[in-house]
Parts: sequence; structure tokens; C-alpha cells
Amino acid sequence: MKTVPRVDVLHGVNLRLLGAREPQHYGARSLAAIDKELIRLGRELGLAVRCRQTDVEARFVAWLGAANREARAVICNPGAWTHTSVAIRDAVAALAIPAIEVHVTNIYARESFRRHSFLAPAVHGIIVGFGTVGYALALRGVANLIQGAR
Amino acid sequence: MKTVPRVDVLHGVNLRLLGAREPQHYGARSLAAIDKELIRLGRELGLAVRCRQTDVEARFVAWLGAANREARAVICNPGAWTHTSVAIRDAVAALAIPAIEVHVTNIYARESFRRHSFLAPAVHGIIVGFGTVGYALALRGVANLIQGAR
Amino acid sequence: MKTVPRVDVLHGVNLRLLGAREPQHYGARSLAAIDKELIRLGRELGLAVRCRQTDVEARFVAWLGAANREARAVICNPGAWTHTSVAIRDAVAALAIPAIEVHVTNIYARESFRRHSFLAPAVHGIIVGFGTVGYALALRGVANLIQGAR
Amino acid sequence: MKTVPRVDVLHGVNLRLLGAREPQHYGARSLAAIDKELIRLGRELGLAVRCRQTDVEARFVAWLGAANREARAVICNPGAWTHTSVAIRDAVAALAIPAIEVHVTNIYARESFRRHSFLAPAVHGIIVGFGTVGYALALRGVANLIQGAR
Amino acid sequence: MKTVPRVDVLHGVNLRLLGAREPQHYGARSLAAIDKELIRLGRELGLAVRCRQTDVEARFVAWLGAANREARAVICNPGAWTHTSVAIRDAVAALAIPAIEVHVTNIYARESFRRHSFLAPAVHGIIVGFGTVGYALALRGVANLIQGAR
Amino acid sequence: MKTVPRVDVLHGVNLRLLGAREPQHYGARSLAAIDKELIRLGRELGLAVRCRQTDVEARFVAWLGAANREARAVICNPGAWTHTSVAIRDAVAALAIPAIEVHVTNIYARESFRRHSFLAPAVHGIIVGFGTVGYALALRGVANLIQGAR
Amino acid sequence: MKTVPRVDVLHGVNLRLLGAREPQHYGARSLAAIDKELIRLGRELGLAVRCRQTDVEARFVAWLGAANREARAVICNPGAWTHTSVAIRDAVAALAIPAIEVHVTNIYARESFRRHSFLAPAVHGIIVGFGTVGYALALRGVANLIQGAR
Amino acid sequence: MKTVPRVDVLHGVNLRLLGAREPQHYGARSLAAIDKELIRLGRELGLAVRCRQTDVEARFVAWLGAANREARAVICNPGAWTHTSVAIRDAVAALAIPAIEVHVTNIYARESFRRHSFLAPAVHGIIVGFGTVGYALALRGVANLIQGAR
Amino acid sequence: MKTVPRVDVLHGVNLRLLGAREPQHYGARSLAAIDKELIRLGRELGLAVRCRQTDVEARFVAWLGAANREARAVICNPGAWTHTSVAIRDAVAALAIPAIEVHVTNIYARESFRRHSFLAPAVHGIIVGFGTVGYALALRGVANLIQGAR
Amino acid sequence: MKTVPRVDVLHGVNLRLLGAREPQHYGARSLAAIDKELIRLGRELGLAVRCRQTDVEARFVAWLGAANREARAVICNPGAWTHTSVAIRDAVAALAIPAIEVHVTNIYARESFRRHSFLAPAVHGIIVGFGTVGYALALRGVANLIQGAR
Amino acid sequence: MKTVPRVDVLHGVNLRLLGAREPQHYGARSLAAIDKELIRLGRELGLAVRCRQTDVEARFVAWLGAANREARAVICNPGAWTHTSVAIRDAVAALAIPAIEVHVTNIYARESFRRHSFLAPAVHGIIVGFGTVGYALALRGVANLIQGAR
Amino acid sequence: MKTVPRVDVLHGVNLRLLGAREPQHYGARSLAAIDKELIRLGRELGLAVRCRQTDVEARFVAWLGAANREARAVICNPGAWTHTSVAIRDAVAALAIPAIEVHVTNIYARESFRRHSFLAPAVHGIIVGFGTVGYALALRGVANLIQGAR
Repeated sequence: MKTVPRVDVLHGVNLRLLGAREPQHYGARSLAAIDKELIRLGRELGLAVRCRQTDVEARFVAWLGAANREARAVICNPGAWTHTSVAIRDAVAALAIPAIEVHVTNIYARESFRRHSFLAPAVHGIIVGFGTVGYALALRGVANLIQGAR
Repeated sequence: MKTVPRVDVLHGVNLRLLGAREPQHYGARSLAAIDKELIRLGRELGLAVRCRQTDVEARFVAWLGAANREARAVICNPGAWTHTSVAIRDAVAALAIPAIEVHVTNIYARESFRRHSFLAPAVHGIIVGFGTVGYALALRGVANLIQGAR
Repeated sequence: MKTVPRVDVLHGVNLRLLGAREPQHYGARSLAAIDKELIRLGRELGLAVRCRQTDVEARFVAWLGAANREARAVICNPGAWTHTSVAIRDAVAALAIPAIEVHVTNIYARESFRRHSFLAPAVHGIIVGFGTVGYALALRGVANLIQGAR
Repeated sequence: MKTVPRVDVLHGVNLRLLGAREPQHYGARSLAAIDKELIRLGRELGLAVRCRQTDVEARFVAWLGAANREARAVICNPGAWTHTSVAIRDAVAALAIPAIEVHVTNIYARESFRRHSFLAPAVHGIIVGFGTVGYALALRGVANLIQGAR
Repeated sequence: MKTVPRVDVLHGVNLRLLGAREPQHYGARSLAAIDKELIRLGRELGLAVRCRQTDVEARFVAWLGAANREARAVICNPGAWTHTSVAIRDAVAALAIPAIEVHVTNIYARESFRRHSFLAPAVHGIIVGFGTVGYALALRGVANLIQGAR
Repeated sequence: MKTVPRVDVLHGVNLRLLGAREPQHYGARSLAAIDKELIRLGRELGLAVRCRQTDVEARFVAWLGAANREARAVICNPGAWTHTSVAIRDAVAALAIPAIEVHVTNIYARESFRRHSFLAPAVHGIIVGFGTVGYALALRGVANLIQGAR
Repeated sequence: MKTVPRVDVLHGVNLRLLGAREPQHYGARSLAAIDKELIRLGRELGLAVRCRQTDVEARFVAWLGAANREARAVICNPGAWTHTSVAIRDAVAALAIPAIEVHVTNIYARESFRRHSFLAPAVHGIIVGFGTVGYALALRGVANLIQGAR
Repeated sequence: MKTVPRVDVLHGVNLRLLGAREPQHYGARSLAAIDKELIRLGRELGLAVRCRQTDVEARFVAWLGAANREARAVICNPGAWTHTSVAIRDAVAALAIPAIEVHVTNIYARESFRRHSFLAPAVHGIIVGFGTVGYALALRGVANLIQGAR
Repeated sequence: MKTVPRVDVLHGVNLRLLGAREPQHYGARSLAAIDKELIRLGRELGLAVRCRQTDVEARFVAWLGAANREARAVICNPGAWTHTSVAIRDAVAALAIPAIEVHVTNIYARESFRRHSFLAPAVHGIIVGFGTVGYALALRGVANLIQGAR
Repeated sequence: MKTVPRVDVLHGVNLRLLGAREPQHYGARSLAAIDKELIRLGRELGLAVRCRQTDVEARFVAWLGAANREARAVICNPGAWTHTSVAIRDAVAALAIPAIEVHVTNIYARESFRRHSFLAPAVHGIIVGFGTVGYALALRGVANLIQGAR
Repeated sequence: MKTVPRVDVLHGVNLRLLGAREPQHYGARSLAAIDKELIRLGRELGLAVRCRQTDVEARFVAWLGAANREARAVICNPGAWTHTSVAIRDAVAALAIPAIEVHVTNIYARESFRRHSFLAPAVHGIIVGFGTVGYALALRGVANLIQGAR
Repeated sequence: MKTVPRVDVLHGVNLRLLGAREPQHYGARSLAAIDKELIRLGRELGLAVRCRQTDVEARFVAWLGAANREARAVICNPGAWTHTSVAIRDAVAALAIPAIEVHVTNIYARESFRRHSFLAPAVHGIIVGFGTVGYALALRGVANLIQGAR
């Protein structure tokens, strides 16, 4: 691990639609804009942020493995997989680095099946409902964990 | 409302034990230390932070009402009431200002009755499991909401 | 017990917000206006009506005990405690006088957790969803019970 | 609609047994006596009350439709259908006039299947457990709704 | 969008086995035969039908997105994903065009877990149990929607 | 059975309100208009269509029996009975001819108790949510079944 | 009540199909044959047996009331209503004479919703699964009850 | 198998207490009296009745096996094992002869755990709630089965 | 019954392993040591204590019957049968003498199926989690019951 | 901690009614009498017993904290809070001294919601159903724990 | 323990019927044949295999204890007790040697109550559905465990 | 199909981590080592073993289809998909060759959601909890099936 610690940000299924799909729910900022902002904030916090999105569950699982080898922490929003994927839960539980779960919307104010997250018991922290700002909060939380500062 | 916007931080039942009770779960920092740090961070973010703790549910409900009249946002950790109090949920739902729910521990990795929060559907955002750092993240999220900045 | 029988009206947690909170749900009349009207109607019906509100569960329990000693019937709206408090249920079950349960809103048209009332099996009658008029109906029902007239 | 507004009172299945069946549960007054009293009270309140009972679900549904065309409000006690009939619920939900649900006994102090009412979410108000007096209270509530008085 | 409106037909996981797998359940016609027939019927109805099958969930999600951009309606049979995929539900819910859900077998006459469809609340219409004829009915329904004719 | 095969269309409880009740849910076409159109479409498809509506469950059961003796298929929409009537299920299960279940609205996008149909396991096919067009699709499906054509 | 005590046998919905519907389940004897045999057996046991069948729930309820006035016991098989009708349960619970519940098939070896009988807690005895012989056993049980013999 | 067919009657755990335990529930006749009467009735019906009681589940299971080899039918009341023993269910399901399940009390009017019988799906017929007369009815039902008479 | 009242102590299945099995759960004292101590304490309290252990459910049931005839109270720990045996519940419910239920471990801090005791509603008192001391407390409670002293 | 170890006895909500409320359930001894007797028994056992009752949950929580600092064990009966308060559970779980849970009545023979205790998994021992004698047994159990004697 | 390690094979309730009962489910080989083959295979693997069957639960429990003292591993098929016996679970959990659970049939393709095994969480390994071959596989697995070879 | 029958071994999602992830749960042997050993054992048993692992569900489904065409049996461990994938269940149910389900860990001793396997009802046999040895046992079971030997 070199001087600037890496943090991986993984967006799951359908999140490429951010900014386009139901903006009243998910806000108007695109995924590209969010990622750009996170990279900028990472630089400010002394972190190298790498952002990736996929609709392929196997790739998400693989990226979790890659994060485990190459990064110091992982921030992930598995989207709909949150509620259905034991595979992602197991991949998160196998991590040696801390994982943060982010949800853009307040999943507790929506359909009842969205109240259950398979990976929640396996992560370090969870941020729900702050819109796309939640990613930035997660990054700060991760910076705090890595650097022993707040 | 004067120049510096106020943010109320409300700690609920048993949280006066922070730092003393089960430090492996809740961390070693005392509530006083957390509050002091939040006030300092608030000053840095241009916010007047007021912190209060009570084991009396009626007082918690009253403070939510006071926050509604006197503050721009409220960060609350109702502790065990999270899982049992419809009264607090209703008081949160009656707020005109945004509320943030914070839990020090990862409540999803504990007993099953801790997976349900009565107030979650009524808050703006939720932060779970970052230890006492969660309050600082919440404060930053609130600053972002109030100031339209990140 | 003197010539004019007393009836206690007990309002529980958050009901001080009546008229202010979500008027589309709860109507626009304040608690003070309701109480004033009930006292007036009580006089018309030959009843001394005493109205009290509290957000403190222990006080509500104590007032139920006081009603038992000093009144001929009790009309109560425990608000959110309806759905969570076995303590109030037990206090109602210990009454020697009839109790009426009133809900301003139609609790069956709201969240599912509001469909269950702990005290319902222990009361004489229940009035749901008439808005603040429900109290007046309850008072008439009580007058009927006490006076053997309708 | 002419000068005296009409209110329909609909009694459902088995309610013709009132006064005869289990008087300790349902009281000793017959349905005829109740109806007579309601008509008298209606006259006092300036309302034309029409009372009907049937054990035929289709007729109950038809009468709800008739009430919608000819009356200003409907008071109904569907008896056992309360717990089983989506047909009646739909007929109530299709009304343009307010409906009141009345139960003679405290259904919450009886078998668990009586705790669920299919039509409750579709009515304006519910009165439970006042014995046959509940109809009179419902009529007063309806008068209040129609006349904008209490 | 040019003169002949496009309709996408999406077959999900295992449906390539149609005609081969359990013909007593699924009928003896192959997917190719069904698709050919649908294209023919589409031409008759003035619709350009495009049929695709995949066992890859991410591709199914992508094709839903493509349909949203390029077609006027989508007919989909997600197969086993119907019962497990929130990802597909979210992708369907994000469509601006109507979606039809088709099941070849009567899923209500099979194992209990097949009675629940995650996407059902998000589609326009559902056709169950007509065998492979269901697709043709769906196409006629879609023609009706698009052309305002039946 | 003579040259033109008969198909019975049975509408259940409250469906006489079609076009009048909640048109945003059920559409604006009246039952008479739907029936007329079905008879016309039947003639086109070489089928004698007979349409009947009743709010009387016993009559619906009887008509199912009559269909069994006199028709080649039955299309039925039992309305609210779908969710509550084992009697109708048993009558459908006793048929020697195919039955089709039609629902005008998407019952999966409404209250949870509408997600369960007692008769679904006993019918040949189900069409949900196409508005009143669903009947026409059902008739085409039936034509296909009877005539061995599509 | 005259010298020969009357016993009413009430057959509910769809039971007119006995002998015709699914004979492998329900046996090959027609309802008329069963009734004839019961009347003969009744004569042997000194009982006047009256048998009636209806698909109209209100009539079944009315016949229960008539039995209460005119008979010494009632044997009833409500068919599908067993599992859905609180109205019949209430009518049975209101009887002053003993009621026997008979089911021709073994309802515990069929669909799970047939395992629950609403009226079972209100009857004197239940006979399940003996085919049409169950009625004869019920009649003997009733004779025993009435005559204090076995 | 000789001229007179044998029928085994097996009483399970605690049934030796019949007549002594809670006579208001179970009646006042002793097991010996019941058995004697059954043997007498068997003789009348041309059946050799053998009655046995045990509190040892393994013996009950063994006797079921013995009945299978030596008898033409078995009448059993497993008592409390009804609700808990899959072992007895399996032993009953392995029988080549018909089994009848008898319960002295109306198990559906008692605690909820008594509503479920593990063996019910495996028996030919069930008789519930006739008191000790139920055994005699079962014997007659068995005679009917064996002799093809009623 | 002679001068010194007898108290029976019944240990159920696997309790012969006390002191040997999982001492961290069940403590290190053997059943013999416990019994000896109980006899000594009984003598001190003026009670003749008889202790027995069995892994045979039928014997446990028989000993409950024997206690009913020969003792003034029974203290029992049915071990695993607590959670599965309706037979023992019925045998306890048939007692005319008070029964005490003892559990060595805190069954509420173990697997969820141990939270349910079939016999709990039928006993006089329950002592859970005091280790082997629980038996001594039960004996004192029994002495109090028998002797009308504390 | 001085020579005589202290034991705190905490009575929760509504327990001030002991002796007055439903004596058939709770016995006729008043709380004062019970406390006096416990202090006397404590003296006999070499323990300083301090008894307190409150209807205020926050005070109960505070007293648990005080017990932790000043006593060697705590005996508590939280009354109705047993079934609803996670706050008290957490306060008990935070104790460094053993806690005993006492219930005067057999909560397993009452309403189903009384079968669940939130604090049970967190206490050392539980005594249920011995009436007010249960406190004395708890005190002896506590003496045993503190003194390493029985 | 001597040179050849012993392995105990315990067959539970009803398994003496193997080969005779429902051969389409359980296969046609008798228990004696299976045991003989296991002893032969044991010899091949260097293990002394002892096979026993019982319908007496207490004996099964005792044999588990004997195995613990005298054998190096135990292979058990508790038959129906799998789904009902906490006693056997506790006896297995008390073993210091590994236990293997075998089921001849695929219990997951049968009634739903067979999907739950009380002892599964306490065993080392489980083999389901291989018919009687499952025992041989279990023995090989045990050989592997004991000898550190495969 | 040539002389040596092929057996396919399919490892699902995350199983490439075997030996690396949580070795206390999954053991220390790598997937490569396991596969090598299985190929060696296959050769010994006269079977051509082909091992494959994938994190892509569609590939797993495809390999099941390939096995159906090219192999005589399939051994599969779907990992986390076991609990969530109806797609894999359907693909297994469509096989004409026997399938064996293997789990390395004892899934019944872990989180409750791991107790349910969607494919279990569709496989021939299941082996759970033997660590990586389970695959070898499965291979022997398969050899037995194919060769009609043990």
C-alpha cells in the first residue's frame, strides 16, 4: 500500500440511472457528477477514490474482492441487490477492510421489502436517505476510520 | 432565527452511559467528550450545536418540539426508544425541520428486535454503526442541508 | 360523590399539538377549544367535566387512578401509547368505573401498527375517526351510562 | 334531496336476533325497539332515519347503493360480514356519502378474528362496544357531519 | 420513432428451454416458433416485434432500458426472476412505456413461492396460464394500448 | 351443442358499477358497453357470447353450473369474491370446461388482501390489469382454446 | 314439540353436486339418495329427519334459526362456507340445540385453507372423512344425545 | 384372518384418567366402561374388538403395527400425542388398513395448539367432540367400511 | 397422608447428565449431590423429599400421577420435554396438588425454541436460571404453600 | 461496600396497587407489607434490603444504575414494562451485578403478550407465579449468590 | 479404546419398517441388509460398526450416551423424532464425539414439517436423500474424520 | 457418451475463496486442491470428473444444461445462490440426470436464512457440513447411482 490510501466506491444495479430515474426520489445529480465530486473530496481528505458501477452481480462481487486486495475501505450501494443477494453479503463478510453501505433514498419510507438489507449485519456503517450527499458522508467516515482522525 | 443556525442533538435513554457501558460495543468516549467535539465541529461548520440527554421520554418529546421552534435541524439518537416508541415517531413526524437518526452501534448486527425503528420512515436520514463518529457525520449532513453546500 | 357526577377526560402524548400538527389529519381545533366545548356540553348533560393532557406516561397512569377515586367515568385518548403501553392497559383494567377510548383520526386507515390497541379489550366503548367530535360523542355515551338515559 | 336529510341505518346478518341472542353480550333491546328510538332521535335532530335489516349480503350491498343515491349518510353494522366481506368494503368505498361503522359489543374483547374489520379503512367513523346506544351516538355524529353543528 | 411502432418481447432465464423442458407444463412449442409467430402477428397488427432471450439478469435489465428508449411497449416473462429480482422490478418501474408480464404456466397452481411476483405492482397488465398463447394475447393488448383501438 | 359455440361471461359483485365507480381505477366504460363489445367480438370470432352480472353469490355459483352444461368456456370476474369465496373456487374446480379469471385493475398494485385469489389455482388462465380490454383478450384466448387456432 | 323429535340436516353450497362432482373425492351417491337413507335411518332411530340444501348463505342461516325453533338437533355440512363464514358460525353459536358438523371428505388431507373451520368451536361434535356415511354416524350421535341412549 | 374381523381400539397417553380427570371436559365414564361397551357393540356388529391403553409412545407405535398384521381396522385416540408426534403419524401412514381418529372433547374449542393433528391427513375418518360416544360412532363407521353395509 | 408431608422432585430427560454435561451452562454439581441437598433441606423445612430422574416420558407422566396420590406438591424439571410435550402438560394440568417448574439455565438466553414451555400455563410457579439452587428455592416456595408460612 | 451487603428491590408501574387491584390475581398483601417482610428476611439473611416503587420508567432506569453502584444485587419486577421496555432491558444488561426478575402472577397463564419478557435474556434468574412469596424466594436466591451459600 | 475404533449406527422410530414400508419412498432393502452391509464396509475401512434400532426415545438417548463412552463417532437417523425431539438434540449436543445425521428420503421434497431438523445444528454432517446408500457415505465420512484420511 | 461416464462438479458464487476465506468455517484447502483430489478419486471410481467454478449465475445455469447433455450426474454447490435463486432451482428441476447438492459448512448451525435451500426439493441427495470432504462423499454416492454398485 503506497502513500495515498485507496477507497473503492461501488454502485450496483440500476444506479447508472441516477439523475434520470424518478428524480423526486433519487435527486437530479448524475452518477458521473457524484463520482467526480467524490474524487475531489477524496483528494481533499488524502484519499484516492475509485468509482465503478455495474448491473452485473458477478462483477460487483469481483470488485469487492479487488477492493479487498487493493483498497483500504469500500463504500457500496448495491441498489436492489441489497434486499436479495446473499452472494454480495458473503463477499462483504469475507472482506478484511471496512465496508460502508449507502442508500440514496430513505428505504424505510418505501415498500416493506426494502426494509431488509442482507449485508447490513456485515458492514461497518450504514448511511441512509441523505440523497447523493450520503456518499460524501460515507467517505468522511471512511477517512476517519483510516486516518484515526475525525 | 439569528445569523448562526442552531442544530439540536438529542440523546435518549441510557446514552448517558456512553464510554462506561460495554465499551467494546459503544466505544470508550464519554457523552461529554462527544458533545464537546460536536460543538467544536459545529463552530467550524458555522452551526450552533446544543446537546442534551435524558432518560425521560416526555422530555425527549418536549425537546423535539423545542427544536422545531428554535433550531434548523435535529440529530437524535433515541436509544432503546427507537424500537418501542410511537410517541417519539409522532413527535418527529410533526417536525417542520429535518431530523437525522443516529445509532452508535450497528443495530443490524445485534438482536432482531433492534432491526426495526419506529421513527425511520419519518426522518430525513439515518446513520448507523460508525461509533460515536456517526454524530459528526450527521452534523455534516445537516450542515449540507441547511447551507445548500456539501 | 356529590350531586354533579364528574367525568375525567385524559389526553395523552402529543395531543397538545391538536390544531397545530397536520390539520388535514387531526383537524384545526385546538385542545383548549375542545376541552372548553366538552365542559360546556358536560354542563348541558349534568356532568362536571375535567380535562387534562400530559406527555408523561406515569402521570397519565396516575390520573387514571385519580379518576377511579374521584370520577364516575373516564374518557381517554392515549395517543401513541395506545399501540405500545401495557402499563396504561393495566391501569385501565384496574378501574372500577367505565372507560371510553377515543381516537381523533381513523387509525384503521393509517399505518398498520396503529390498528392494534392494547387497551381496547379493557374499555367499555371505543370511538374512532369522527375528528374532535368523537369526544363529544363519548361524553354523551358516558352520560347515558351514568344516568341510565340516552 | 329535500328539506329533511335522510340517514340510512343498515343492520346486517344475524342482527335480527338482537335482544334474543346472548343478551349478556348484545343487550336485551330488540332491533325494532332500537330502530324506533333512532327514528325518534332522528326527528329530534332533524333527520329522516330509515332502518333496514337483512341476512342477504347482496341486499346489503344494494342498500348501500340506494343510500348513496337517496341519503346523506349511512350508519351500518354488517355483523359477521365485517370480518369477511370485501364486497361490502368495496361497496362502502364506492359511496360518495359518509359511512359510520357500529358494533354493539366490544369486538376487541372477543375472538381474535373479530379484531379485523375489512371496511374500517373505508368509513368515516367507528363506534364500538356501547351496546345498542352506539347507534344513537352514530346518529348524533352523522347529524354533526351533515349540519356542520355538534 | 418511425411509422411502425416497435414492441420488445423479453424472455428471461431458462425460457430458452421452452418446448424441451417439461412439455406437460410448458407446452411443446419452441421459443423460436413462438417468436416467429409473434413477429407475424405483430405485422398483422402494425407492430414491429423484436424478441430476445437471456439467462443473464444484467442483460435483461439492459434490454428493459433499451426498450424504454426504442420501443413503445415491452412484453416480458422474467421466468424465475419474477419471484426473486428487485433489480428487474426497479428497472420496470423506471420505464416510461407500458410493460406486460406474461407467464406461460398458471403460477398459482404450482409451488407457493411462485405466487409472488416482485414486478407485478409495476406493470400495466399480467397474463398468466394461457400457455404460449399468452404472448399473443399480450401483443394484442399492447396494440390496443398503442393504437387506442382494440 | 350447436354450430356456434357459446361462451359465458360472468361479472360478480359490484361490477354493475363499472364506469360509474372510481373511473380512475376502473375506467369509464359501462358494463353494458363492455358486454355489447364482447358480443360483437364474439360474433367476429365465431362465438355466441352471453354476459351476466349479479351481486348474489349463489346466482354466480348457479351460472357457473349452467355454463358447464351449456357453454364451451367461461370468463369470470368475481370481483371482491375473488379474495374471499371458497364456494366459487369449488364451483370453478367442478367445471369440465376451461375458466378464465379477469380483473379490470392491477390487483397487485392495490391493498395486500387483493393479491390472493382463491380461484386462481383452479382456472385455465388469468388476465389482470388491462382495464376493460382484459375481457376481449380473454375472449380471444378462449377462442383459441376452443378452435385450436390462435 | 310432538312425540317424534325432529332433526334437521342442512347441506350448504355446492353439495347439490354430490355424486356428480369429483366422485373420487366425494363418492358416487347423490344427495337425494343420502337424504332418503337418512330419513329411513331416522325412522329406525325414532327421529323425524328433514333434509335441505341451499347455495344461498342467508337461507342456510335462516334454516339454522328454524331448526332452533322446530328441531331437537341440527346436522350441518356448510361446504365451502365452513372456511369463510363468520355469519354461519354466529348463527350456530346462537343455537340452543346441539349442532353437528359433517364433512364428506377428509379436509385435513386437502388444501391448507380447508384445515380451518370457523364453526368448529361452536358445535357439539364433528365428523370428517367417512364419505357420505358420516351423515349416518352424525344422526346416530344425535339420537344418542336426544335419547340419552347410545 | 378368521370369520369375525378384528378391530383394534388404541387409547394413548393420559387416557387411563378418563372418568377421573376433569369430568366436565371428558365425561364421567371410565376407560374400562367404555371398552366394555365397545366390545359389546362390536359383538352386535359382528366385530371382535380389542382395546388397549398405554402412556408409552413406542408401545402405541408397536400396537399400530400389530393392528396392521392382525386387524381389519384401527380406531385410535392418541391423546396429547395427536399434536406432537410425527412418529405416530408415520406409523399410521404405513398402515394398509383404515384408521379412525377419535377425540373425546371438542379440540377446536380449547387451546390453539390442540387444533392441529399430525395424523389427521393420514387417517380415513375423524370424530371429534361427542364425548365417549365418539368411539361407538367410530366403530359403526368401521363396521360400515369392513362390511360394505351402513 | 402422615405427619411429614411429602414433596416429589422429578427430573426429566438428560438431567442425569447434570454436572457432567456443559458445566459452563449447567454447573458442576451432580444430580446426586443436588438430590441429597434437597432431602437435607426438606428435613430442615419439615418435608419428606423424594427425588427421581428418568429419560422415559411415560415414567415421568406416571410419577406425576403418583405424586398426585402420594405427595402434597411436585417440583419438576422436564428438561427438553418442556418445549415439546403436551402429554406432560396434560398430566400436570390433571394434578390436584401444586406443581413447580424449574429450569437450571436461563432458557430465555438460549435458542428461541426454548422460550416456549408447554406446561407453564398449568403450573403454580416457575423458577428459571438460578442454576441448581433453583430447586432449593422451589422447595422453600412449596414449603410456604403447604405450611401457610413463608 | 461495607459489612452488610445491600440488595435493591425495585417495583415498577402499577405495582403500588398490590393488595388493592384484582386480589384474585395479585393476592391481598399490600406493597408495604411485602417490603417490610423483605427487609425483615434480609436482616435474617445478613442483607440490607432497600425497596422502591415507581410508575416513572426513567426513575426505574436510574434506580437500576444506582443499584449498580451501591448494591450487590437487584431484584426487580418491572410490571407491564417487562413486555414493552427495551430501555429497561438495556439498563439491566449494563449492570455489573446480578439481577433477578420477579412476577407475582403466572404470566404464562394470561394474555399472550405477557409471555414475552424483554429483560429475561439479560437477568440471572426469574421467578414467576408464586404470588408475593416470589420476592422472598428471589431474596434467598440472591443471598445464595452473594454469600456462596444456599 | 482399542485398536479398531468403534462407530455406532442408531436407527430411530419406525425404521425397522425399512424395505417393507412404502418401498417407492424408502427403497426395498431391509434394515438387516443395510446393517450387514455397513458392518462389512466398516471392516473394509478399519472400523467396528455396531447397529441398533429402537422405537423407544429414551433408549435412543441412552445409546447416544453409550456411544459417547464407547465409540469414536455416531451415525444416527432419528426418523420422525428429527422433527420433534429436543431431547435427542440435547443428547447429541452433549456428545464429545462427532455425530452424523442421515435421512433415507429427500425430506425437503416431502411435507413442510419435515424440512426442520432439531438436531441439525448440533451434528457434524448431514446426508439426505441417497436412499439407504446414505449410511455408507456417512460411514466413509466418519472414517475420514477418525483417520484423518479420506 | 463414451466408456468413462462424466460427472460435472459445479462450484457457485464466492467458492473460489475456499481456503482463503474464514478457514475456521470453510477449512484450509483451496478449490484447486479439492478439484484435483476429486479428479483423482473419480479416476479411482471409473468416472471422468470435470470441475468448474463461476460467480456468474447465468454461467452456472448454462453449465447445468451442459451437464444434462454431456454428463451422467452433477454435483453442485451453488453457495449463496442456494438460498435465493429460483433460476437455479428450475435449471436443476429440468435435468434428466441426478443432481447432488453439497454444502461445505453446516448451514443449519448458521444464520436462519441459510436453512432454506430453493433447490433441495429438486435434487437427488444433499450432503451438508463435512467440510470439503463432502464433495468426495457426493462423488461416491454418484458412482453408486451410475454403476448400480455401492
